[in-house]
Amino acid sequence: MRRVPEDGRIAARSLIVALLFVTCAFAQSDPLPSWNDGLAKQAILQFVRDTTDSSSPRFVPPGQRIAAFDQDGTTWVEQPIYPQWVFAVDQVKKLAAKNPKLAAAKSFKAVASGNWAAIAALTSNDLERILVAAHTGVTVEQFQAIVKDWIATAKHPRFNRPYTDLVYQPMLEVMSLLRANGYKTYFVTGGEQDFVRAYSEQVYGVPVEQVVGSAGETKYGYAPNGKAILKKLPKVMLVDNGAGKAEGINLMIGRRPTVAFGNSGGDQQMLEYTQGGEGARLMLLVHHDDAVREYAYGAESKVGTFSDALMDEAKQRGWIVVSMKNDWNRIFAFDP
Amino acid sequence: MRRVPEDGRIAARSLIVALLFVTCAFAQSDPLPSWNDGLAKQAILQFVRDTTDSSSPRFVPPGQRIAAFDQDGTTWVEQPIYPQWVFAVDQVKKLAAKNPKLAAAKSFKAVASGNWAAIAALTSNDLERILVAAHTGVTVEQFQAIVKDWIATAKHPRFNRPYTDLVYQPMLEVMSLLRANGYKTYFVTGGEQDFVRAYSEQVYGVPVEQVVGSAGETKYGYAPNGKAILKKLPKVMLVDNGAGKAEGINLMIGRRPTVAFGNSGGDQQMLEYTQGGEGARLMLLVHHDDAVREYAYGAESKVGTFSDALMDEAKQRGWIVVSMKNDWNRIFAFDP
Repeated sequence: MRRVPEDGRIAARSLIVALLFVTCAFAQSDPLPSWNDGLAKQAILQFVRDTTDSSSPRFVPPGQRIAAFDQDGTTWVEQPIYPQWVFAVDQVKKLAAKNPKLAAAKSFKAVASGNWAAIAALTSNDLERILVAAHTGVTVEQFQAIVKDWIATAKHPRFNRPYTDLVYQPMLEVMSLLRANGYKTYFVTGGEQDFVRAYSEQVYGVPVEQVVGSAGETKYGYAPNGKAILKKLPKVMLVDNGAGKAEGINLMIGRRPTVAFGNSGGDQQMLEYTQGGEGARLMLLVHHDDAVREYAYGAESKVGTFSDALMDEAKQRGWIVVSMKNDWNRIFAFDP
Repeated sequence: MRRVPEDGRIAARSLIVALLFVTCAFAQSDPLPSWNDGLAKQAILQFVRDTTDSSSPRFVPPGQRIAAFDQDGTTWVEQPIYPQWVFAVDQVKKLAAKNPKLAAAKSFKAVASGNWAAIAALTSNDLERILVAAHTGVTVEQFQAIVKDWIATAKHPRFNRPYTDLVYQPMLEVMSLLRANGYKTYFVTGGEQDFVRAYSEQVYGVPVEQVVGSAGETKYGYAPNGKAILKKLPKVMLVDNGAGKAEGINLMIGRRPTVAFGNSGGDQQMLEYTQGGEGARLMLLVHHDDAVREYAYGAESKVGTFSDALMDEAKQRGWIVVSMKNDWNRIFAFDP
């Protein structure tokens, strides 16, 4: 809109109103209210200020502002086991009930047993194989509808709430802050891409095209009505974990992120790859050290392993370790 | 910014200025000046109006507005051979000169011969293999620097201009129009992703994260200074052509495009997949029928084959066939 020339009186009043507005905005709105004041919060705020200030040597042009987030354990609860594994078990049980041949397969047995210790011992790769096998012949859109149905009803065993309630409020605030400052927020998850895409937009405001995850191959074909469809094949294309996260980022984003948030050894290479870019970069690891409000785990956990070596690397490379206990005054939106 | 309350006089003046501005804007600016009035232009303008009008039954919410463009032959010249193949030949020659073992390999010989008929007979898959093989061990960033150097100096044999001058002005206008209306413009190209990303942003305004193309695997590692790097491996991951375009779209975008533009049989499935989505969709094929200003080719061409069957399908499915000769009053920005 073209501005209308204003006379002096109007212009002066305009300036005063604008100043009042700006002052109030600064005084009232903390973009990260669930974060306690501390090094992590200050580092995030300072980084956003610097990278969006065109006079700063740390300025990052808007089109290059990419923030990559791990999902499990970084933006929602991953204990006692990754939500997608619970989904997989539920699905495998359903499918095995219908298909005795599938039920007899070894990997299916392990999963369908519902023995969490045995399931937790599986690798992401195993899980991906089982999941993809379980959904062979299903179209991508049918699969997402299955995930949507599941996630609308499944509940976490400890919190007795939908998994989508178990999202970390402080991380939602960081994602919003980054988006408000011209960052594109991406998921870079070991979870299956088609799974995370079923809820990423609604729950996190991350559109499906900004979800990078483990992926199986698909087969092109036609429905009986002639409509083009893609069916899921039992062949893993990308395991988006560890080094696979850097590869997935290159494949689907094509540039090194500016900001990367993770919480486990599976995120190590994503953070290294982020840091390897030119200019300002910010790397953070969420540390689960709050058994009262969530979980406390690290080197010994099969799920979301945070080894001593990773902690050493974080210190050495200047990554920020976020203590859930000390840095977050609220973990979930439903917390008091 | 909060609006300042205005007195009556100012408000009236404001309204008049605004109306004048809007009227002038409508009268003066045709968003597609290089398009002749005709069915194709009208269909594009109508589609953009409908899908951005929230009162229209064809409205598409902003976050779902995805426009997918083939590159070779749809947004720049692909005759007498795909620019990337010229690049490949130049690179293979250079590498063969340094490495006698590579030079002895059969596929390298065919390419290094510079015999365009033999080269044109290769499939995209062959080309992808050769290119990936030629750049094994090079990091992704080094590869893009090589492409940038090449594209800054290489010239088209007929037009004697850089390939980046041989971009279709009408297509740039469509891309701009779509972006101005909340569409994300993507390339979905049979060309190598890392190749197209080297110039997509500068030449077309398409950011690297919106380039879907053929891709090889990469290997994660560290440079001597400890910096994380990805090296190209001689293993094809995705051939983004034909059915591979639908698969690539699902892998990297995760939703069916709203708009798809192609020009050959390699784009058939992309258009079908686009059309298979719910709600308003627009599918177009550029037809090369202007030997004077560009090239005329179709069913008989090895490069950018536009078969009679494709033409029949276009008619049957209601796709719009754009005649370069009749629909475009200007092809290149340098045209009079």
